[in-house]
Amino acid sequence: MDHKNRPVRIIGISGSLRAGSFNTAALRAAIELAPEGVTIETAEIGDLPLYNDDVRLVGFPPPAQRLREQLSAADAILFVTPEYNYSIPGVLKNAIDWASRPPSQPFDGKPVAIMGASGGILGTARAQYQLRQMLIFLNAFPINKPEVMIGQAPTKFDEDGRLTDEPTRDFIRQLLEALAAWTNRLR
Amino acid sequence: MDHKNRPVRIIGISGSLRAGSFNTAALRAAIELAPEGVTIETAEIGDLPLYNDDVRLVGFPPPAQRLREQLSAADAILFVTPEYNYSIPGVLKNAIDWASRPPSQPFDGKPVAIMGASGGILGTARAQYQLRQMLIFLNAFPINKPEVMIGQAPTKFDEDGRLTDEPTRDFIRQLLEALAAWTNRLR
Amino acid sequence: MDHKNRPVRIIGISGSLRAGSFNTAALRAAIELAPEGVTIETAEIGDLPLYNDDVRLVGFPPPAQRLREQLSAADAILFVTPEYNYSIPGVLKNAIDWASRPPSQPFDGKPVAIMGASGGILGTARAQYQLRQMLIFLNAFPINKPEVMIGQAPTKFDEDGRLTDEPTRDFIRQLLEALAAWTNRLR
Amino acid sequence: MDHKNRPVRIIGISGSLRAGSFNTAALRAAIELAPEGVTIETAEIGDLPLYNDDVRLVGFPPPAQRLREQLSAADAILFVTPEYNYSIPGVLKNAIDWASRPPSQPFDGKPVAIMGASGGILGTARAQYQLRQMLIFLNAFPINKPEVMIGQAPTKFDEDGRLTDEPTRDFIRQLLEALAAWTNRLR
Repeated sequence: MDHKNRPVRIIGISGSLRAGSFNTAALRAAIELAPEGVTIETAEIGDLPLYNDDVRLVGFPPPAQRLREQLSAADAILFVTPEYNYSIPGVLKNAIDWASRPPSQPFDGKPVAIMGASGGILGTARAQYQLRQMLIFLNAFPINKPEVMIGQAPTKFDEDGRLTDEPTRDFIRQLLEALAAWTNRLR
Repeated sequence: MDHKNRPVRIIGISGSLRAGSFNTAALRAAIELAPEGVTIETAEIGDLPLYNDDVRLVGFPPPAQRLREQLSAADAILFVTPEYNYSIPGVLKNAIDWASRPPSQPFDGKPVAIMGASGGILGTARAQYQLRQMLIFLNAFPINKPEVMIGQAPTKFDEDGRLTDEPTRDFIRQLLEALAAWTNRLR
Repeated sequence: MDHKNRPVRIIGISGSLRAGSFNTAALRAAIELAPEGVTIETAEIGDLPLYNDDVRLVGFPPPAQRLREQLSAADAILFVTPEYNYSIPGVLKNAIDWASRPPSQPFDGKPVAIMGASGGILGTARAQYQLRQMLIFLNAFPINKPEVMIGQAPTKFDEDGRLTDEPTRDFIRQLLEALAAWTNRLR
Repeated sequence: MDHKNRPVRIIGISGSLRAGSFNTAALRAAIELAPEGVTIETAEIGDLPLYNDDVRLVGFPPPAQRLREQLSAADAILFVTPEYNYSIPGVLKNAIDWASRPPSQPFDGKPVAIMGASGGILGTARAQYQLRQMLIFLNAFPINKPEVMIGQAPTKFDEDGRLTDEPTRDFIRQLLEALAAWTNRLR
């Protein structure tokens, strides 16, 4: 694989703040499953204030500034999103709103992969398609396949939050391989 | 009109926190333009914390509790939403996330109207359609027409944030008439 | 139930033309499962020409005219849609395009229910949300719940195309009850 | 530009069948405005039958076979779509349904650009985002920018259907440049 010769640094963002989140657990699994040459650093979005453009004009708050720098430094982005009310969480959208504002545009041209976990069967499908619409504006480039939608999440993680479902682990491996290959293709 | 005989109490929610927001200004215009028998109370969403389900399980924070009570007491809801990154702001989604969680469901069965203002020509269309998808889950009932998308907002408000564009004022009047009629039809 | 005292006439439209279609089979099941007072007539859309506005201006072709009259005469509409390429079939969209054109607007104000069957797990979810966006323009009023998405369809119908899965039969009953109640509420 | 050294063959598909279509006129304008090294061949979709999987299993009808071959031979695809009922026309979706079916997958991995014309102000935005969702399934790769949405089309074409609006002509040039560059980047 190309990315074995050329490192790919991914920033991973979980859209859930609760301690036992299946999405945060899925992001931990991704870190563990990353192929050789691929590293995943996580972003912290729980200490961001609510977006307010008056505040931005005075200066990005430190957590927003840190997120923007992490995104700018990354080669690619991995969104791990729950579905709340048929869309992505406000928490995740708020992070995107802070990170996307001028002067710099840290999402511009970035390769992206998306995954998500939910208790139900649809497994965050609706949230993922709404997120993909946002990426058009951001001029990011999501991979199309595989679409990793982890349904019935409580049956796929153990009580320590470790992803134990082998087919799901394989899907995540494939997602990361595809993202790394796409990243090197777009360089 | 039916609603002249039977009062309609609307809760209006602006998705922007900045002081000079065109959306908040459009909500103020709606309050001024409300037909007889229709009253609009505004919701405050800027003091909500970021949604965290661990926090909810301990107890809704007071600003979330207040929003939930306002929504429950209202006959109908008016969303006034900017478009950030081709969707509704994280700030507004965060408010929806807090308000929508069990045990009660304050959106269930509620009549809804949507409007939005933006600087560009599309005038929040993309955000409004994403919001409509969220309303399916919430089992709310949005009116279809009119779709109030206030494009090129800076040309339609004066420097004190007063909506001066007469066709837009008429659209908002029609929206409120339609929402009041729909509310009484669904009672 | 209201609709036991006041008949509700539904027009049912399947979006698939193949003889063994699970969606057409699900529509047959709906006819069989219709509650007392509810009747479902089916629409034929396979003999429509491709929509061409030049043709319409000369006069609606007979199959389009017939579809428009059926829709106008119905109290409510039941869409039964497969998912092709993450949306509704062109065949179904073509029928909507013919039926929606001036001078009359047979969808205007009509109560609507949606269901769909597919071989995969997501069960036409993506197609159904795209269809719901179309209904905004058409000013139709879809019910929100239940959302009937029949996944893994080959396991739920017998070889004669009869729906044998009891939970799915119940969902369809609930859908028809909800549509009938909604229809009478909107009269 | 790369594509001046390496030819880029685009297949252009208009979603409208009427003779005076602004979308077909916009496609003609694109042919005229194509940068050096870029050629655009048009696809005929008006003689396709309505999609029926029983028919496909017997054999693709000649117009479907021809479309599939044109798509396979092309380096990139240009969709020019009207908006009917807040989505793409059934006519265009029907073409996509025929072209996308096994055994071969002519959309797989193809670079895509989208434009559209309409009489209203939103200029096919809603149709374009629905089309983009379809492209996820098809594993095609649309460019994000520019988004060419030709609103108020009757003011921008002369009575012979020639695109006379200079800013719109520039947008189309930019779209084709971006598509050619994207095509060469993905080779």
